[in-house]
Amino acid sequence: MKLYDSKIAPNPRRVRIFLAEKGISVPTVPIDLAKAENRKPEFLAKNPFGGIPLLELDDGTCIAETVAICRYFERTQPEPPLMGVGAKGEAVVEMWQRRMELEVAFPIMQVFRNTHDFFKGRIPQVPEFGEVCRGAVTKRLAWLDEHLAGSSFVAGDDFTIADITALCGIDFGKPTGIRIAPESKHLARWYEAVSSRPSASA
Amino acid sequence: MKLYDSKIAPNPRRVRIFLAEKGISVPTVPIDLAKAENRKPEFLAKNPFGGIPLLELDDGTCIAETVAICRYFERTQPEPPLMGVGAKGEAVVEMWQRRMELEVAFPIMQVFRNTHDFFKGRIPQVPEFGEVCRGAVTKRLAWLDEHLAGSSFVAGDDFTIADITALCGIDFGKPTGIRIAPESKHLARWYEAVSSRPSASA
Repeated sequence: MKLYDSKIAPNPRRVRIFLAEKGISVPTVPIDLAKAENRKPEFLAKNPFGGIPLLELDDGTCIAETVAICRYFERTQPEPPLMGVGAKGEAVVEMWQRRMELEVAFPIMQVFRNTHDFFKGRIPQVPEFGEVCRGAVTKRLAWLDEHLAGSSFVAGDDFTIADITALCGIDFGKPTGIRIAPESKHLARWYEAVSSRPSASA
Repeated sequence: MKLYDSKIAPNPRRVRIFLAEKGISVPTVPIDLAKAENRKPEFLAKNPFGGIPLLELDDGTCIAETVAICRYFERTQPEPPLMGVGAKGEAVVEMWQRRMELEVAFPIMQVFRNTHDFFKGRIPQVPEFGEVCRGAVTKRLAWLDEHLAGSSFVAGDDFTIADITALCGIDFGKPTGIRIAPESKHLARWYEAVSSRPSASA
């Protein structure tokens, strides 16, 4: 088994943190995104969209998509649970994971994709859309602050994949100037707690 | 238990098809999106982002997010499986489900959100971004056609949630003129097969 990885992208970090929380070690293969190694035919044969992370199993099966990779490890090593327990518990964590993706992490990635020099010439950028996303993110982070006033972690009392998604999304806001607002005390408390877990530096 | 639903939006349809495939009947509460009923305080108290579908359990727990709702029913009634079986099987279906969301359905929804009159004045539209997404969708549908040359369904031999996501995404392309290209024979064969299942009209 091996994990195609990159230290500069937010999605591989999500898997690394997930694995660190479970105490699982997987051999990694570094992919140089700046050199577009993920666009080379060898890699596209494994994942046609060129995305990382990518998990290659020993039987040759390639599993792309961050959350699908996490699901694989959640099933093969359930403890500690990071994706909820029981029908209702799993559904609630999945809801929060998706909210953190769709309302926080993905819009932050869209700001980066549409406004940052890294993607200039690589994709058709629409800076105006990036700014729409920036405005949406500001509102969502203020909402997340309110939510965390009544909750230790994003999905409740326990650290889950939803916290990982939110942390990696918010940290990826740095290159485009997205920060936790000084008045967002609950979000800052949560951020400090999740950032200081050993897994955060995975 | 009740499901907040709308006949005009693509995401509630995904849950209705999922339930129909499992033979599960859930009482529904219609939400009028044209009248912005999903933006009223009563509804926002159940789902702060105003999205539908929304599943309210008998204990008052509200589960938002299409795939989280589907997961709940997959766990409470596993047969027939629509989200894969076993660690590898679940991960592979989740990968395909997410590919169909991120590469097909969501870009099609972005075309609608950013170019269609329905959203004029409701959200800040960026038509240029809609057109970037339209171009991406065209490429992705051509790729999906190639993929389906070697696969009965999106995730392999069995009908899964990945087919539901792709079907509802593609059908939602109609109001913005997104269609299956005449040369995409495999995609057309798949589309005919999944559209003619009784669940498609749920």
